Amino acid sequence: MKLRTSIFVVTTFFLLTMAGSALGADKIVWKMASSWPKGTVLQEIADDFAARITTMSNGRLTIKSYPAGVLMGALEVTDAARMGTIDAAHSSPTYSVGQLPAAPLFGYIPFGMETIPYLTWMYEGEGKALFSKLYEKFDFGYVAPCGIIPSEDLAWSNKPITTMEDFKGLKFRTSGYWGEILSAAGASVMMLPAGEVYEALQRNVLDAGEFSIPSIDKDLAFYEIADYLLVPGIHQTSTFLDIKINKRSWNKLSEDLKEIVRVASEASTMRLLTRCISRDVPALEFFREKGVKIQYLDPKIQKELSIKAEALMAQKAATDPFFKEVWESQKKFRTEYDSYKKLMTPSY
Amino acid sequence: MKLRTSIFVVTTFFLLTMAGSALGADKIVWKMASSWPKGTVLQEIADDFAARITTMSNGRLTIKSYPAGVLMGALEVTDAARMGTIDAAHSSPTYSVGQLPAAPLFGYIPFGMETIPYLTWMYEGEGKALFSKLYEKFDFGYVAPCGIIPSEDLAWSNKPITTMEDFKGLKFRTSGYWGEILSAAGASVMMLPAGEVYEALQRNVLDAGEFSIPSIDKDLAFYEIADYLLVPGIHQTSTFLDIKINKRSWNKLSEDLKEIVRVASEASTMRLLTRCISRDVPALEFFREKGVKIQYLDPKIQKELSIKAEALMAQKAATDPFFKEVWESQKKFRTEYDSYKKLMTPSY
Repeated sequence: MKLRTSIFVVTTFFLLTMAGSALGADKIVWKMASSWPKGTVLQEIADDFAARITTMSNGRLTIKSYPAGVLMGALEVTDAARMGTIDAAHSSPTYSVGQLPAAPLFGYIPFGMETIPYLTWMYEGEGKALFSKLYEKFDFGYVAPCGIIPSEDLAWSNKPITTMEDFKGLKFRTSGYWGEILSAAGASVMMLPAGEVYEALQRNVLDAGEFSIPSIDKDLAFYEIADYLLVPGIHQTSTFLDIKINKRSWNKLSEDLKEIVRVASEASTMRLLTRCISRDVPALEFFREKGVKIQYLDPKIQKELSIKAEALMAQKAATDPFFKEVWESQKKFRTEYDSYKKLMTPSY
Repeated sequence: MKLRTSIFVVTTFFLLTMAGSALGADKIVWKMASSWPKGTVLQEIADDFAARITTMSNGRLTIKSYPAGVLMGALEVTDAARMGTIDAAHSSPTYSVGQLPAAPLFGYIPFGMETIPYLTWMYEGEGKALFSKLYEKFDFGYVAPCGIIPSEDLAWSNKPITTMEDFKGLKFRTSGYWGEILSAAGASVMMLPAGEVYEALQRNVLDAGEFSIPSIDKDLAFYEIADYLLVPGIHQTSTFLDIKINKRSWNKLSEDLKEIVRVASEASTMRLLTRCISRDVPALEFFREKGVKIQYLDPKIQKELSIKAEALMAQKAATDPFFKEVWESQKKFRTEYDSYKKLMTPSY
């Protein structure tokens, strides 16, 4: 009898452990913070990424998704994921420019590739390996693209911009490499947070400024206070978002959960692209109805600015071997792709 | 004592059932057959889709992927999945044209959309609902896009094709709507399986023919026996593949497994696109090195053929209300997208 009881206890314990482990006792809960304001399509895709992983894993890996400003500021999420304050950061490589000067090459580049060649270079070309190399010293468990957005609006402005002369002295809101290029063209560049751009344009503190794609700019209501919308988005033809996961958090995942995260990142990339386009298409029409004058920047001016951009990139490549490696890989791919695209694109 | 023994037996049974169920006793194994020959990039993505689902589910849903011709012929997979002979079919909507005349509108369309607008219409526009409606009477458990391929080669030929006159009497291998359009242009159209095209071109049974994208045509070695490659792929600017799952098979899946299949389908769509482009780009260069003369069809001829295509589509829409609904939805979206694209695309 004693033996039986003890078999009973041991068996029960063993089976409860097995069942418990498989049925959710080992449930992992992650915090993911993003660089995106609540209510934007970017945060929508971040939430969606988290929800799909939670569903696919039946809650074994539950990801709680927080927009910018809830757990920390928009630009602090990458460091927080490195340190383990949070498990994952949904952001853009561009924001790491301070620590990793080549990072914007993986986010967006003035006069950069359009979405399809950029995706191809990143996923199937040399981009993949270079992207891992970029973040090497941050020592994440997992890094991957997780969203791409199409061409942005070039400028909302109070006066028309049609010549190179028009850039001289123009008080312009932008950031990054594009700011350097516009400065070289004579503009007076300032960086303001999204929330302050509206008022600054209204009060003529700014003459012009850019923020994002048509549908996001629509949410920010720039059409209410700017007479002109300048296109195309030569400064930001396409932009990658990414997901970065803390090493300890990643290493706790079983192989099935790792694969769930990988596939979800990939699916999010295309989902963001098509969702943005589906909203940008009617947004431009909406601006027209609101009386905004949409101006397409003279191709000759685009060309002049592209030469300044090329010079800036060459200058950066000259002082940073990794920047040079990435930049040359992209230039080589673009040349080959452009020749393919020219042959394969109908014109009728 | 009797009571104790019986508690022991009952508890053990209950816990074993629980543990067994969670630990894989309910493992589901599916057969998936495709329309793609072994060794092609298309079958590579089908295999990849199956493997990723198997890994994400830790083998709880194991998908065995079979290329065309192993379990059944390329064109029989959709019916086999309906009937339950297999659980899933990886194919293209185009092949269902015999039973569903509007099906090719979801696969590829001569002078159709390029990949990005086609993806946007399908995933975020009216395409999604119309796609489900297309397959309604087939009563599948799940249908979704699962791969898209970029622009195909227009023709491999033994003689140059530069005028509308050149199509008159031309013995041409193709299929579907494009065959009807070329017939209207005076060509003598025949349908041959891929495996017979090489010899037919070599023996001048054919003057010209098209099969697929540059990298697949490279595998088929058409460059060895044709002097000319005609581009761009006006007949097939982009092509959707899809996944269709038997209703009984689908209904056996738990919600987490269903979501795994959904997300994997979406990820496969972009993966196929970027993989094709990464191989098509060097394939064109390879043809040039092999001495193939690559000819870009005169835009005026493209225009003339596009008018014939438009007429054919209008004629089909006139006799089929569902075809009309889909066609008009696509035309409306294209008009809006084209105006967006014109504004947002740099030209320098």
